Amino acid sequence: MKHYELERVLPEEIEKRSFELITQELGEKTLDPENELVIKRVIHTTADFEYAKNLIFSPHAVTKGLEALKEGIQIITDTNMGKAGINKAALKKLNCTVDCFMADEDVAEYAKAHDTTRACASMDKASRLSGDCIFAVGNAPTALVRLYELIQEGKIHPRLIIGVPVGFVNVVQSKEMIMSLSGIPYIVAKGRKGGSNVAAAIVNALLYQVK
Amino acid sequence: MKHYELERVLPEEIEKRSFELITQELGEKTLDPENELVIKRVIHTTADFEYAKNLIFSPHAVTKGLEALKEGIQIITDTNMGKAGINKAALKKLNCTVDCFMADEDVAEYAKAHDTTRACASMDKASRLSGDCIFAVGNAPTALVRLYELIQEGKIHPRLIIGVPVGFVNVVQSKEMIMSLSGIPYIVAKGRKGGSNVAAAIVNALLYQVK
Repeated sequence: MKHYELERVLPEEIEKRSFELITQELGEKTLDPENELVIKRVIHTTADFEYAKNLIFSPHAVTKGLEALKEGIQIITDTNMGKAGINKAALKKLNCTVDCFMADEDVAEYAKAHDTTRACASMDKASRLSGDCIFAVGNAPTALVRLYELIQEGKIHPRLIIGVPVGFVNVVQSKEMIMSLSGIPYIVAKGRKGGSNVAAAIVNALLYQVK
Repeated sequence: MKHYELERVLPEEIEKRSFELITQELGEKTLDPENELVIKRVIHTTADFEYAKNLIFSPHAVTKGLEALKEGIQIITDTNMGKAGINKAALKKLNCTVDCFMADEDVAEYAKAHDTTRACASMDKASRLSGDCIFAVGNAPTALVRLYELIQEGKIHPRLIIGVPVGFVNVVQSKEMIMSLSGIPYIVAKGRKGGSNVAAAIVNALLYQVK
């Protein structure tokens, strides 16, 4: 039986050690200190160093996100998976909440009636309930496109958009649309990559930074 | 206002179109037909073509996984996020179930008492309840290491191990350990990459293939 060399790290030290290894591997690459913990946590979640250059932050998006979280804001995701990945204890400490409307019956009906995606319909539902929230979109570019439209129509004014859908159809464009907005803070993963795990990692990276 | 060119694809056609684009981009690269739909769904979930070479399948792991699913098997994940990403309608159709013990109180107590991770303790819990299941590990290498030990001790005999934890500490080694097992079907993402989203995508790719 082959012996496997495992690095001996205490359970509570694994994350710290991972961040050390990430920092080491980033080497000389300098990250904006404001964005550093978000970038590193996304790399921690994906083991994909491309995010060191793919993540685009509008000016002081992190600071603005932290301000919103301190107020105890609602976070809206486009997947239950993204919702599941957000740290509930950290949310609760700040009196923040997280909702995902994707699996709601009225959203399915609305999507069918309007020949649109459930992701898109769930953003419409969010806009009716509250526009003053943080959106964390990790899956559906159609959700991001709908947010863009709702903002242009003056129906919502999100405190922060985390725009990191993943995929092949309209994903790149949907992110470009969000990055064209002025006055709306955003954190976007430029290109095709992203995911519900990335969206949750960004939310968690913000939650953990609130003092 | 700049006009953004969006590809016009009907909501129900988006996935099909994405798979076409993936197939196109894979080009001449030939995939084993048995594994093709798993590989493509993981690329669909991550937009990361590295998985075309990173995913390692033990002989007929897919066929064996499909057989287990047809019997209405229990799937055990190491994160609630992975659990959330598995298609519940598809599961139900096959009388399969999915459980994650990570957030259970007894798991937290066991981990503390034994100075181990909750992920590891949740695999112990799984082994006490049932060893004859599919494990889908997308996050914690310690869970994979514990599965390896439990198998070596003859305590469990999983029908399939989906071993795709992500990260920096013992991740690569934990996967090598699973790939060293004989007689246990596995699907492993070699290297550091993986994630709960990848684990869920592999389970879904299998669920969607059951005839």
